[in-house]
Amino acid sequence: MATQILLKSRPIGLPTPENFETRVIEIPGLKAGQVRLAPHTFSVDPYMRGRMNDGPSYVAPFQVGEAIGGGGIALILESRAEGFKAGSYVLGFLPWQEEVVMDATGLTIVDENFAPLGYYLGILGMPGLTAYFGLLEIGKLKHGETVVISGAAGAVGIVAGQLAKIQGCRVVGIAGDDAKVNYLLDELNFDAAINYKTVPDMGAAITAACPSGVDVYFDNVGGEISDAVISQINKFARIIICGQISLYNVTTQPIGPRIQGILLKKSALMQGFIVSNYTERFPEGFKVLAKLVASGKLKYTSTTFRGFDKLPEAFIALFEGKNLGKLIVEV
Amino acid sequence: MATQILLKSRPIGLPTPENFETRVIEIPGLKAGQVRLAPHTFSVDPYMRGRMNDGPSYVAPFQVGEAIGGGGIALILESRAEGFKAGSYVLGFLPWQEEVVMDATGLTIVDENFAPLGYYLGILGMPGLTAYFGLLEIGKLKHGETVVISGAAGAVGIVAGQLAKIQGCRVVGIAGDDAKVNYLLDELNFDAAINYKTVPDMGAAITAACPSGVDVYFDNVGGEISDAVISQINKFARIIICGQISLYNVTTQPIGPRIQGILLKKSALMQGFIVSNYTERFPEGFKVLAKLVASGKLKYTSTTFRGFDKLPEAFIALFEGKNLGKLIVEV
Repeated sequence: MATQILLKSRPIGLPTPENFETRVIEIPGLKAGQVRLAPHTFSVDPYMRGRMNDGPSYVAPFQVGEAIGGGGIALILESRAEGFKAGSYVLGFLPWQEEVVMDATGLTIVDENFAPLGYYLGILGMPGLTAYFGLLEIGKLKHGETVVISGAAGAVGIVAGQLAKIQGCRVVGIAGDDAKVNYLLDELNFDAAINYKTVPDMGAAITAACPSGVDVYFDNVGGEISDAVISQINKFARIIICGQISLYNVTTQPIGPRIQGILLKKSALMQGFIVSNYTERFPEGFKVLAKLVASGKLKYTSTTFRGFDKLPEAFIALFEGKNLGKLIVEV
Repeated sequence: MATQILLKSRPIGLPTPENFETRVIEIPGLKAGQVRLAPHTFSVDPYMRGRMNDGPSYVAPFQVGEAIGGGGIALILESRAEGFKAGSYVLGFLPWQEEVVMDATGLTIVDENFAPLGYYLGILGMPGLTAYFGLLEIGKLKHGETVVISGAAGAVGIVAGQLAKIQGCRVVGIAGDDAKVNYLLDELNFDAAINYKTVPDMGAAITAACPSGVDVYFDNVGGEISDAVISQINKFARIIICGQISLYNVTTQPIGPRIQGILLKKSALMQGFIVSNYTERFPEGFKVLAKLVASGKLKYTSTTFRGFDKLPEAFIALFEGKNLGKLIVEV
């Protein structure tokens, strides 16, 4: 028997606790190739909001009445799969359950002695790889360029900003409260940071923070914040569309200034991506990030909710900007 | 003495004859390195509309009270420049004057025996090179992909469509009257063509013409036509922003559906460009196009206005969609 959190109804707009439901399910016995897991830490990520809708997105939708799922770290309790010993920790896509029986295919053993387990869901996991491949493959940073990052204090933003600093760029972060702004400036050494909620004129703030214009925009947010940044791009700018969290809960077609005219005038590139486009190259990305973490060149922060039952609350908190760095839930 | 057409006032919205003025100017004597030219054919191009505004664009604005200028072919009447003999034809950026004295720097001798002079302003000139580099560097076509082209019967569109056909793609053109649609289907062998002015449902028309979705969109037009195409792109689609003629005469910020969400879901790329980004590679592009023209694999059509005084009228006609293929003015 194990407790499971399922999608009770599809959210309209911002998710609420009523969209989730708890139930107790039977846990089946182990078949060959399977493991029995006790989830230790769950990752909650903005992209999961898209899966709660019924339309096609880049990942298949969750089904109403079935378990939510996402990235997570779990302890192997019992194993009938070669290479997966009880007592080891694995990283994988896990249903929101207190105990899980599943095929070991797709699970990866993680080393809790190399880094804290939560790192594998953040700086050494999907958000870290997202920042790495987005900057490398789309951003193509050059030394001395100005890089603006929205959602800069989030899981992807904090890695992207530090990687851009390491490459010798001027890094400007946009975030939603003063604690985040101070963290970016004081802890991560961003060159400038803007609190979009309190700044009187976003355009003027971008101009002041980017005296040479914007060469690369790493966008996690979208909407009006992006309008202000995109209006100040330089010739041959690259706009990395990593997320659009400001629009994930809107219930009508978002409308805004047409941007093609700016891309045309500036010979600029805008490209969307999802980290799974680069699955085959994850070992390369992991190696780079692990080396930078080990040498202390990449710092890491996460916000932790404690308790399995806090998963819905933590997920909703993502859209309220309550997290500094990666948001995780320790069971 | 020569007649000159100058910008009398900056257009607000669609240009009118009142924005232009004719005057007679003195033609100075030749200095060393200069040529005296009799313009033979002028090119009128949509990008010139942007130069009539005062804001920054990708080319410097025309000044009120000074001559309009654009691409043209001229006969050398007299020369004090090495390599430029009287009697030869040159291609270059020419002021709208019946006679011009200018430095020979930047002029290129063209061979009227290889192709009709007008070709050097179209399929073998800026529009042809625009189609070639846009498809090659941004479109990155693969055999069997579906390519949609807006402004398909214009100077760039007719070349882009034919190049895409040569590469084994399904080519769908969008144009503004039935004569153009028939030309695309009957003369250029496009797989489908849509008259956006008469089609009852643009989205349904795109779906019908692109049963496998849209892999590449070569956009010369922008606006609502583009909204319909972009909503039907495939994963890893490439959107080439070559022009936005539907928006060049608007007087307020164009508003439309935000497209970043689609680019994100589809891992799609959108890139603006101007042909001069590839200036160093023009010889390569010219060679490819000249070979295809010589072998009969690339067809060419232009619409000709006759008479120097017809330049403003021809330019305005561009925005009324009156041209099939390249629009030129023979003096």
